[in-house]
This record gives sequence, C-alpha cells and structure tokens, in this order.
Amino acid sequence: MKLWQKEYSINKKIENFTVGNDREIDLHIAKYDIEASLAHAKMLRSIHIITHEEFNKLQEGLSDLTKQIEEGSFQIEANFEDVHSKIEFELTQKYGEVGKKIHTARSRNDQVLVALQLYYKSELKTILQKTQTLFDTLLNLANTHKEKLLPGYTHLQVAMPSSFGLWFSGYAETLIDDVLLLQTTLKIVDQNPLGSAAGYGSSFPIDRELTTRELNFSTLKYNVIAAQLSRGKNERILASALGNLSNTLARFSMDICLYMSQNFGFITFPDELTTGSSIMPHKKNPDVFELIRGKCNQIQALQTEMLLITNNLPSGYHRDFQLLKENSIKAIESIKDILDIFNYTIQQIIVKEINLNDEKYRFLFTVDNINNLVVEGTPFREAYQKIGKQVEDGSYEPDTSKKHSHIGSIHNLGLEEIRKKFPIFS
Amino acid sequence: MKLWQKEYSINKKIENFTVGNDREIDLHIAKYDIEASLAHAKMLRSIHIITHEEFNKLQEGLSDLTKQIEEGSFQIEANFEDVHSKIEFELTQKYGEVGKKIHTARSRNDQVLVALQLYYKSELKTILQKTQTLFDTLLNLANTHKEKLLPGYTHLQVAMPSSFGLWFSGYAETLIDDVLLLQTTLKIVDQNPLGSAAGYGSSFPIDRELTTRELNFSTLKYNVIAAQLSRGKNERILASALGNLSNTLARFSMDICLYMSQNFGFITFPDELTTGSSIMPHKKNPDVFELIRGKCNQIQALQTEMLLITNNLPSGYHRDFQLLKENSIKAIESIKDILDIFNYTIQQIIVKEINLNDEKYRFLFTVDNINNLVVEGTPFREAYQKIGKQVEDGSYEPDTSKKHSHIGSIHNLGLEEIRKKFPIFS
Amino acid sequence: MKLWQKEYSINKKIENFTVGNDREIDLHIAKYDIEASLAHAKMLRSIHIITHEEFNKLQEGLSDLTKQIEEGSFQIEANFEDVHSKIEFELTQKYGEVGKKIHTARSRNDQVLVALQLYYKSELKTILQKTQTLFDTLLNLANTHKEKLLPGYTHLQVAMPSSFGLWFSGYAETLIDDVLLLQTTLKIVDQNPLGSAAGYGSSFPIDRELTTRELNFSTLKYNVIAAQLSRGKNERILASALGNLSNTLARFSMDICLYMSQNFGFITFPDELTTGSSIMPHKKNPDVFELIRGKCNQIQALQTEMLLITNNLPSGYHRDFQLLKENSIKAIESIKDILDIFNYTIQQIIVKEINLNDEKYRFLFTVDNINNLVVEGTPFREAYQKIGKQVEDGSYEPDTSKKHSHIGSIHNLGLEEIRKKFPIFS
Amino acid sequence: MKLWQKEYSINKKIENFTVGNDREIDLHIAKYDIEASLAHAKMLRSIHIITHEEFNKLQEGLSDLTKQIEEGSFQIEANFEDVHSKIEFELTQKYGEVGKKIHTARSRNDQVLVALQLYYKSELKTILQKTQTLFDTLLNLANTHKEKLLPGYTHLQVAMPSSFGLWFSGYAETLIDDVLLLQTTLKIVDQNPLGSAAGYGSSFPIDRELTTRELNFSTLKYNVIAAQLSRGKNERILASALGNLSNTLARFSMDICLYMSQNFGFITFPDELTTGSSIMPHKKNPDVFELIRGKCNQIQALQTEMLLITNNLPSGYHRDFQLLKENSIKAIESIKDILDIFNYTIQQIIVKEINLNDEKYRFLFTVDNINNLVVEGTPFREAYQKIGKQVEDGSYEPDTSKKHSHIGSIHNLGLEEIRKKFPIFS
Repeated sequence: MKLWQKEYSINKKIENFTVGNDREIDLHIAKYDIEASLAHAKMLRSIHIITHEEFNKLQEGLSDLTKQIEEGSFQIEANFEDVHSKIEFELTQKYGEVGKKIHTARSRNDQVLVALQLYYKSELKTILQKTQTLFDTLLNLANTHKEKLLPGYTHLQVAMPSSFGLWFSGYAETLIDDVLLLQTTLKIVDQNPLGSAAGYGSSFPIDRELTTRELNFSTLKYNVIAAQLSRGKNERILASALGNLSNTLARFSMDICLYMSQNFGFITFPDELTTGSSIMPHKKNPDVFELIRGKCNQIQALQTEMLLITNNLPSGYHRDFQLLKENSIKAIESIKDILDIFNYTIQQIIVKEINLNDEKYRFLFTVDNINNLVVEGTPFREAYQKIGKQVEDGSYEPDTSKKHSHIGSIHNLGLEEIRKKFPIFS
Repeated sequence: MKLWQKEYSINKKIENFTVGNDREIDLHIAKYDIEASLAHAKMLRSIHIITHEEFNKLQEGLSDLTKQIEEGSFQIEANFEDVHSKIEFELTQKYGEVGKKIHTARSRNDQVLVALQLYYKSELKTILQKTQTLFDTLLNLANTHKEKLLPGYTHLQVAMPSSFGLWFSGYAETLIDDVLLLQTTLKIVDQNPLGSAAGYGSSFPIDRELTTRELNFSTLKYNVIAAQLSRGKNERILASALGNLSNTLARFSMDICLYMSQNFGFITFPDELTTGSSIMPHKKNPDVFELIRGKCNQIQALQTEMLLITNNLPSGYHRDFQLLKENSIKAIESIKDILDIFNYTIQQIIVKEINLNDEKYRFLFTVDNINNLVVEGTPFREAYQKIGKQVEDGSYEPDTSKKHSHIGSIHNLGLEEIRKKFPIFS
Repeated sequence: MKLWQKEYSINKKIENFTVGNDREIDLHIAKYDIEASLAHAKMLRSIHIITHEEFNKLQEGLSDLTKQIEEGSFQIEANFEDVHSKIEFELTQKYGEVGKKIHTARSRNDQVLVALQLYYKSELKTILQKTQTLFDTLLNLANTHKEKLLPGYTHLQVAMPSSFGLWFSGYAETLIDDVLLLQTTLKIVDQNPLGSAAGYGSSFPIDRELTTRELNFSTLKYNVIAAQLSRGKNERILASALGNLSNTLARFSMDICLYMSQNFGFITFPDELTTGSSIMPHKKNPDVFELIRGKCNQIQALQTEMLLITNNLPSGYHRDFQLLKENSIKAIESIKDILDIFNYTIQQIIVKEINLNDEKYRFLFTVDNINNLVVEGTPFREAYQKIGKQVEDGSYEPDTSKKHSHIGSIHNLGLEEIRKKFPIFS
Repeated sequence: MKLWQKEYSINKKIENFTVGNDREIDLHIAKYDIEASLAHAKMLRSIHIITHEEFNKLQEGLSDLTKQIEEGSFQIEANFEDVHSKIEFELTQKYGEVGKKIHTARSRNDQVLVALQLYYKSELKTILQKTQTLFDTLLNLANTHKEKLLPGYTHLQVAMPSSFGLWFSGYAETLIDDVLLLQTTLKIVDQNPLGSAAGYGSSFPIDRELTTRELNFSTLKYNVIAAQLSRGKNERILASALGNLSNTLARFSMDICLYMSQNFGFITFPDELTTGSSIMPHKKNPDVFELIRGKCNQIQALQTEMLLITNNLPSGYHRDFQLLKENSIKAIESIKDILDIFNYTIQQIIVKEINLNDEKYRFLFTVDNINNLVVEGTPFREAYQKIGKQVEDGSYEPDTSKKHSHIGSIHNLGLEEIRKKFPIFS
C-alpha cells in the first residue's frame, strides 16, 4: 500500500527497486512518526480540521500502535511501502475515514523529516551520555595511573617522558571537542520542520507553533524551503559530528594496538577480551580495538556518502533523499555499540611496568637535561648544542628526576580543570 | 565455533561485537570458499599431506555442501563465527579427523582472500555482461532516434543543436571507458593469493601453481606480503571501477530527470514506470532514475570507506579488514540491480516532439550561421562578431538546414565505430 | 636556517622535498607567530627565565617585524625553513643571545599550533561577518520580491507554488545552521595550546594561564597530548564547517544556474556579470555561479584530505601534519572571496516575470484545489482522488486564489522571526 | 584578452574571480596546446579552410612559441585569460587575419580537452618509467637482503618469520597492480577529443581522423558528447590511478617509520637523510617518509575533489570544469617528486641486525613447530592445541631451522617471476 496509490498500478520491478529496505529501517523511526502524528492531529483539532471525537479515535489508535512498538510486536508487512503507509492503514482499518484525515495538511516528506529529527534528537542525547560515561572512565583511569611514566613519541621516535595519566586524560579532553559538535548538531536538528509539506508549505491554516511545543522542539525551521534543504544537510552535519567522535576513538584504538604490540609492551588486556588465530596458538589479538578503529573509519566515511547524494542537486525534494536514512541510522547504532564496548573494555586495561632505563629510552630525558643547563643560565640554543654533543659522543647521562609542574603536564594533570570543562547537557 | 578456540572462553560482549553480521554476508562467498577448499585439498593430496582416501571424503563433503548452496538450504547458524568455521565443522562432523586436516597449511586470512577474489572475478564478469547489454540498448536507441534533434546546452544555457542519437550513443561510448577499468580490475583480482597463509607464507612445501591452475587464476600473487597487501587494495580498486560506472549512470539519470521536467519536456516514460505523490495527484515522478542516481552516489562513496579502513596502517593483517567485505558485496549487488533496471526502463523511454522553432531555442544555430560566413571567406572571429551583432540587435535569422558531417556529430553518429571499440571479453 | 641545525648537513634533495612551499604559506600566519612569541616572552619574564631588559629587546624586535608585515615588506627568504626560523634569526641577528632565549620552553610544534589557532580565530570571525552580510542581503531580497510567485519543484517536476521571497529567505535561514557550526568551530580553536611543546609539555615552570590571558583565548587546552591531538582535528572541524557553508552556497548556485537556463527563464543578471563563449555569440553564461559551485565543491573536498592525512596515525606529532596548513589556508581565502562575490552579484539579480498560466505550470495548484474540498468536508484522501481524476480526464481547473497563511509559507514569510534566529556574535 | 570578447566589458570583480590562476597552471599545458593547434591547422589546410601559405605562417608562429617554451622565455601575461588567448594573440599580432583563422571549427573547450589529454599521456609515461625504476630498486634490495629475517606481524602482534627480501619484493609486486591501472588510464586518455568543439561537434567538414594521426592518439573519442563527458571523468580516473600508487608508497612509508622507531629498530638511514628537532638534540626523524605518506594521502584525496566537482551535473560543459585542472597538475608534479625521492632514499636504507632470540620474538616460530608435528602425522588442529599448551605453560621451545620452500615465501622469493610479471610499456 502506498499513500499515493493511483488507478494504474506501478510496475513490479520498479516497485521492488524503489522500495528498498525501508520497511526494516523504518522500525527505528516508527515511534517518532507516531509522536509527530499525534502532535499533528492535535493541531488539526485546534484548527477544526478534525473534531474532538475524531482526535480521540486517532489518539487511541496511535497509542495502541505505540504499545505494539514497546512490546516489540509492531511490524511493517511486505505490502506496505514504509512505516507511514502502515500507520495510516492501521488507523483507517480501525476508524474508517478518520484515519485518512490525519494526512490532511502534511506530506510524507514532512513526516519523514520530522520523524528523523525526533529520532536524531533522542539518539544524540544517548550518544552524549555514553560519551560522558567514557569521559569519566578515562579521567578515572588517568587518576589511577597518574604516576606511571610512558615514553612519549614524536615521528614515532622516542622523544620525551609522557605518562599513562597524560595519555588517558588527553583523550578525555579531546572528547570535549567532540561533545561540542554533537551538541551543536543536536541544536540544529532541534528545529521543527513539520508543516513544510512537500517543501512549499500548505494552504491550510496550520499552526506550526503548536506542533513545535507539542514535540518539544526548541524552535521552528520557519521557512519551508529551508526545512526541505535541511534534508541531507542534517545528515551531513550528523555524520560529521559522529565522524569526529569516531576519529578520537579510532586514534585511541591505534595507540592501544601499538602499545599492545610486543615491541612496545606497555599494556595488555585479560585473555577473554582478546581473540586468537586459526594457525598461531600464541596469539592474543586486540581485535576489539581493531574493529573499533575500522568501524570508526566506516562512520568517518559516512559524510562523503551523505554529501555525494545531495551534492549539486537543485533545491526541492528528490527521491535520492530516501537513501540518506539507512546508513545514518546504521552509523548511530554502530557508534552506540562502540562507545559501550570501548567503555567496558578500557576499564580492564592492564598497565604494564615499563623499564625506562632500557637503552632505547635513554634519550627520553635530554630536554630535561637541557632545561637544567638553561635554568643555570645557559641560553637554550647553546644548551641544546651541548647536550646534542653529549648524545653524539656517548657521554650523555639522563636526569630522570625532573618534575613537570605546569598545568596539563605529567606531574600536574589538571584533571579537575578538564572535568569542569565538560559541557553540561540535560 | 571458532577456528582458533582456546581453553578460556571469549567474553560474550566482545564476541557479539567482533562477529558482526559475517554470517549473513558470508553466504555470498560460501560457494567460493568451497571451491578454494577443494583446490587446496587437491594440493594437499599432491604433496602427501592427505591421502587419496582422505581427499575423496573431503571432496564428497564439499560437494554435498555445494549442493546445499545450490538448493538454497545452506545456512550459517548462530553458533558459527563465519562460513569458514561452518564448513570445517560440517566436514569434521561427518569425517572426523580428516575434516580438521583441510586447514593444514592455510589460514583463515588466506581463505577469505581467495574466496573474495573468486567472488569478485565471477561478479565482475556478470557486471561486464550487463554493461554490454546496456551498451547495446543505448546504441539501438541512438539508431532509432537518430533523426530527432535536441537542444544542446553548455552552462545549462541553450547552445548548439544536439540529438537523441548523439545523446544515447554519447553515454554508450562513455561506458567503454568504464569497461576498460572493470577489465583491469578483473585482471588485478585474477591473481591467486592462496598459500599466503597469515600473510607470511607456510613452512609446508605447498604447491601454489597447482591451486592456481585448479582455480583458473591467470597468475599468482607470488609474494605473500603482496597477497596480504592486496586486501583492501582490491576493494579500493573495485570500488573505484564500480564508482566510475556508477558515475556514468548517475549523470545519465540526472539528464533524464532534467529532460522529464516540464520545463524541458523532452522525454517521458509510461505511467507504470513513474511514481506519485501523497499530496499532489498530478505527479508522475522519475523516482527510478532518482534512486539510480542516489544509489550510484552511494557506490561512488564506497572508495572513500575502503580507503579509510586501510589508510596509514602498517603492512600485515589487521582485523579491520573484516569490514571491507560487507559494503563491497552490497555495492556489487546494487550495481547489478541498477544495470538491470536501467536497461529495462530506458528501453521504454518516450521521446517527445521538441519544437526547435520555439523562441527560447532561437539561438541554437548561431554557430552554423557563423560557419556559413566562414565558408564564404570571412575569418571566424569576424563572422562571430557579425552574428553576435545580429543577436544583439534582433536581426538574427537562424539557418537550421546545415548538416554536420564529421564523425561523431549529429548527422554522422559513427555507431559502428563505437560498437567496434567495445572491448571484447569472454 | 633551521631551528634544529646540527653538525652534519642535511641532504639537499631531502631539504627541498621537506621544506615545500612553507615560506609562502607562512606569510599568512607570521603575524600570529609574533603575537604568540610576545605572549611567550612575557611569560618567560614572569617566571624569570628572561630579564626585563631582555624582554624589552624582544618586544622591540617583534614590534619591528609586525611593522614590516603591516607595511608588506616582511619576507621569508629562501634560506629559511619557515617563518619561525626567520623570526628567531632576525631577533638573534639584532640582539644576540637574547634572540635565542625566546625558544626556551617551547617547540616549533607549539608555535605552529598556537599561530594557526590565532589565525583560524581571526579568519572565522571574518567569515562569520561576511556570512551575516549575505544573510542580510538575502532577507532584503526576500522582502523585495516577496510577492513574486515561482513554480516549486519536487523531483524536478512542477509541484506547488513557491515564491522568490520563499526562495531567498530559505537560503538565508539555512545559513543560520552554517553559522552555528562556524561558531562551534571558533569555540574549539579558542583553546590555548601553547605550552604543549613537542606534545608532552615542558619541565620549565611555565605559566600557561598567563599566555592564555595575553592571547585572549577563552580557555586552555590543558592536557598537552590533547593539544597535540587537536592538530588535524582542528583542521577537520574547520573543513567541515567551511564545507557546510559551501554546500549551501553551491546548492543556491545550482538553483541560479538552472533558473537562468532558457528553459526556466526565471532570473537573469546584467550582461557585465556574465561571460561569453569563444564560438557562440549569443551566450551569456553564469560562470560566476558555476565557479562558486565548483570552488565550494573543492572546499567540501577538504575534509577528506584533512582526514586522510591524520587517519589511523598513533598520537604524537608526525611531520605529515605540516601538510595540513596549505589547503586549510587556501580554503579560508577561497570562502572569503566566494562570500564577497556572491553577496555582490546576488544583489544585481534580475527577477523576471513568470507566466504561471503557462500550460506547463497548470497543475501547480492541485493541492490548493484539494484543500478547498477538504475545508468543505471531504476527507483528504478522497479529495486527492477526485482532483486526481480531473487531472487525468482533463477537466481540472486551477484555483490560483488561495493564500498560504502559516508561518514560513509564501504569504507569511516570517522574515523577522528568521532574522531574530541569527546567532549573535562579537 | 579573451577569446569571446564582446562590446560590453565584463565587470572587473567577476573577471578576477573567474580567471583564477589559470595563467600559472596553463604553463604546464602550453606545449600541448601548440601541438594540438598545429595538428588542427594541418587539418584546416586539408579541408581548404586555410591555404598552404596561411598554414605555413601558423606553423612558423607556433614553432617560434615552442622555442620560447623550450628556452623558458614563454610567459602568459596578466592581460590574457589563459594560454589559449595568449597563443591566438601572438599569432594574430604577427600574421594578422590568419592568426584568427586557427580558431575556425574548434572551441576553447576542445582545446583544453585535447591539450590536457596530451599532457596526461606524456606525464603518465613519465610516471610509469619512474615506477619501473622504483620497482627495479626494490627487487634489487630484496635480493641484497634476502637472507635477513624480520619478525612478521599480524594485528601488530609478533606472528611468524618474515624477511627483508619478502618485504621489499612484496611492495615491488604490489606496484605491478598500480602499473596496470596507470596503463589503463593512459589508454583512456589516449582517445582524441579534438573536434568536439563546444561539446556538440562542428558544422565544418572537419577530418578528425587526420588530427588523431597527427597527434598520435590510438583512437578517437568519436561521439562529441562522450568527449565532453570525459572532462572530469579523465581526472577522476587519473586521480584514482595516482591514488592507488600513492597508497602503496604511503603504506610502505608507514612501515618504514614504524621500523625506524627505537621500539622496532629494524632499519635506519644515514644522518643526512633524517631531520632533527628544535628541542630534542637526540632526534633523527624520518621526515622524508612522513612527508611522502602525507603527500600520498593528499593525492589520495584528489579523487573525492574531482568527483564532487562534476557529481550530479547534467551533461554538457559547465565552467566548474576549469577547476579540474589545477589540482590534477599538482598531483602529477607531486607524485613524480615522491617517486624520485623514494627511489633515491630507499637505496640508502641501513638494515640492522635483529636478534630474533629476544624474548619478545619467542613465539615467531610456533607455526613451524606445529607444522613439524603435522608432518610427523598429527592433524593440524591437534598440533595447534599441543603447541598452544606449551605456549601457555612456558614449555615451548622454538624451532628456527625450518626452511620455507614454496614460491613467494621467505626462502624462495620468486624475484624473477615477479620481475617477469611487470607489464611492458613503451
């Protein structure tokens, strides 16, 4: 069943090609389509397009469907094009004409836009909470391991002393930037598009402020062309925000995989969190972090896909936009899983003892030696030359005693300052 | 069941996260894993790792599984990690120890690599055939409509006369470049990787030339590190080749959508190939071509995803590579559908009468007028100025009689030359 | 001259390859390197690494260089690796040892990070202002042309009535989302990284709060690893924000190019804003909007480049990061030009008369006819079927009299509401 | 000066915005524009549009300009829009009317297309030669170091024995795939587009076979719309081919950077090929390989840019296409530099002694131990379990004596087979 069914029937091949797997995807947004339908019905009642009695029936019907969703019994059968057709069918089946009336003054476009935005809002809040949980975990880990030094690398060469405290809290603070972008994304999708109809508004005297309040949107996307232009734009912005967060987690995972390599040997995980090899019995592989890295890379690729779908298209709806849904929803599902598994696994990290007296770490402290000379009055460039010569001729002796005192350094992590920077959200 | 099962069990959360939906995806490559397993078994027999009797059992078991696949009864149950575990389990279940022996001198890495390459080879051949079918269709359409003029545009401004013959055969000839890249991709995946094991070869005296012959590979990827490096590289090359073909189809679809717009009104399609609107009863929308365009854009995005997954990773297997499979397979399935539906639909195109005497097409022929002057002896730049002035002052009169005689132009389409250029493949 | 000159000299080929065109690019950030150097010198004075006299000399030297930049006489000669080497050389040349002291407790890494962030901050403010100017222009155009109807399209098919007022203000409101992302980007780069040194902090007792205040940063990037991780991340976020704005302008340009086509004929521009053809004297091409579209697409590609450079790299500085500068700076320069030319050109748009009684626009008003029936009591779905039949059998008569009253629709644009939504920035 | 100058003058702001830096870029293609102009003039002579005397003048004029290019004195002054305007101006200046006649039956579009394709052809041949040089270097290095073992990694975990011979020749063999794609790209750009004029052909009886022969193209792009569609398509295909080669070099560089890290310590380079740090005197950084990696990543990003510029645009020329030139030319220049510097530097690699008896490499040989058991009759899975238990309980003793005999493995590199696979080109 289609909302636009005509007298001639659409070719079967075309139908199969165009419907795609909307039925499966739409289960994610069914709940929000019902919410928006209820708000729309309230508005129709308020402008006297439907009566109180009609509204009550619609409310009852929508409420029943919500229950089905909550109980897991809601299904979009093969004869429906999408969730919107299904819901209208159910209402009409039960209440006759009234069921059809709910589509007054709105379009399927409209419905998809508003349902997706409600879905994005809800999911972004969940993602923000999960990110905060990980942030807290990382700060706790930073505190726990704040005394443990780690070689710091530049150019993958042994450079200067770092620490586990610095490492964990460095990624924590980086998450703050990701959160800022997620929050802005939330703000952007928090503008009611309902009422834009097919992208040019409605000649019914609809009350868009009413649905805005009912649906708890912070504001409206006033202009109906702007509402239509937000399709694809929302998805690009979302993809970019998820991509940023993914980038942080992917680079963290890269560090973890490297540090687990026997050649670094800085960390490990309990056996049951690692996986084996079909031919090498000694392997305990960090598959979970490799898959986090890979899945994060997939999420980072989403923005290009969203962009290519809408790029260079003139304004106004195009059916291509249907394709924006599936992979956006998948990316949202994926990042939630990733955040959960990351948070779960990282808490079980085993920080190993690192022998910084090992020959290969010998020059970790050259900068501290230089700084000693500087404090004693040697200009920096000269001190640099002097220690440089010691390194060359083998006479260099590390001074490992120096404490780093400034904020954000190994001996003054500033964990509380970082914690306070985390943006508040409700 | 996993090929690498150990004494401690892997954490359930980790298992769910790492297995993903391999079971579903792997159905596409099951057939090829069996083919490769059989070739591997033959080789093991030839180097006396397994006996003739053992080989016969394995052959029988593999043959049974092939039958299940052909009949559609083959399944990868939830307790198997992937198709490889499933197949080994079935063989072991049935034949005991012998079933386990088939994994001698190979690794799962190996198996995935070879099965995917066999799959890509087979699918690329199908895609090439479908592309040839479309090519033929387009040349036929060009021939059918060769007399029908069409305004040609540059900068979306009315420019010079074009024709439907030119338009259809222009896209046909463009497909030739796409075919060249598909063929090169086929050549690149047609190198046997089997024997690379975990990416560093095997200490068994395996005979890689034998499996190369058995599996009909044109050559070997000799170096085992090169074989491992081809993971991800194959997928990037494939994605790029599919992307090129997609680009041709997407731009063609853009033309179609534009030409169907009432403002152009050059073409239409039978009602049953168009779709309607939930609020506008007059709409006959070209959804099928919009979805082709959108799906082609998704395929074009694949290359970035494949690149991001492998980018900057050091050589050697990483679990991230598992994620290369799913969307490559989806893109292959998608492009086959697209080619079918494009070929089916385009044959039903209705070419409308275009009134080139309409005011807006008035200047289509200015270049022909200029050329008349040039042939009479006026230098081109002067003739250009003269006709330009006529256009400015309103005295211009089009000469629509001129025939274009050179190869590849509206009155000499060169369809046979284009047909001959199409690369041969078997 | 390099900051890290050693006794052996670097190979000439390697030097040419590694220096690249930093000298040219660095002119954009020279001013900010001096600002940051001055703040660093103040801080060194406050912790007694340098004396008041030494500081005064450095201040004088830096002030002289700033003057050179303002006068346009500042150059980075071929014997300098980058702007940082050049500045230190000038100071040392003039004041001897003191010049070298300024590099105490910082690293080139540090310098680049802080200078780029100061540069980004300044440029983002300029871009925000230019965007606001365009926003105002568009709202004014919307107001000027609010009475002029325009066909609205979905699927590029004639759909429902739109208007120039709706079109201009639709893009204006869309710019608001772009501004939100630009502001968040500004917030993200507004965190002082100075003091992170080579990415692991300094053993000098540096005062990072002091430089934060001196440089007018809103806060610090406390953790030094986080500061280092922001390299590349800042550029990705910037690229994404510029890309979003670019997307709006590119799609607007696509509309303009389409509407200028003779087949639409909705708008035009004065001759001197269009360009001609070397062979067709009648052409007045919208090159400026095609180039805006193309340049916007280039800016949209930047994010992928920035991502690929840093993707999958472990934490810590890598020389690859040097390559993040050039194209970020180019994109910033490009978007400023685009905003200027767009704002300049769009004001000269000529809105043409559109005859909505033309046969091809006949069905623009079907939804309004349906709505009339609904208001009279017919359920929507039934009214839809009825008007649909009229369309099919040719009996349909448009009702063009209907007014759209809801906020954001053609007769109630809500320009003031949109104006008020524009985020305030200083 | 512009080829399409009209009576009204173009606005200065618009001119600056539209011309861009074509003048600088066009120096790369000047030589090819002259070549194509000469072929075009020959053709015009053959169809009697110009006389023998006129042709001789044009030939002389073009020959003079070629000399200027070879001597480096050719310039495109600020008053010319591009190289095409410049060349026509020079001819007209010198020979009057004749100079203008050369533009008969062609368009600037045409000229850009053919000049770019000639340029691409020439550059692709150079790139292929440089790739072959690197291929030879790598095979030589593989031969030199064939006895030196190297730990092989999967998941960045110590896995199985590898060798320098395997590593060098692995990347060599991978280059073969890159060469196949470069060759196909060469084939694709080796189709003469000249005669397509503005994208719809010419009403002059031009002889496109003649120019095809004169310019040494293998075939024609017959259809003029196909010729126009190749703009952007050529660049995407080129970008993809260069991107593939870049990917190989980038991943090789990643290995090199990792292997140079003190934690691996497998290789190093002479001091004069490394660079230092401004604060750490002990640093010898692999900047050259980091910049190769980064620049290769930039080249890999090019395909997305080329795609975004043309994506979803209807057929026919758009001014956006002008933007395809600059970064394609830059990528070509960049990859040539990269190939030179890679080939130069890699020859100086210092392969260090690796102590495979080190504790961390202890389990490198477990697969060989398992295989010993299998050869003695234990089924693989059982042998795997047995050695696995030894690993767990600490009783495992490595057998480092095993030789790998199969083709492409550490003791049988197959260098000659790989050498023979390298595609021949002339």
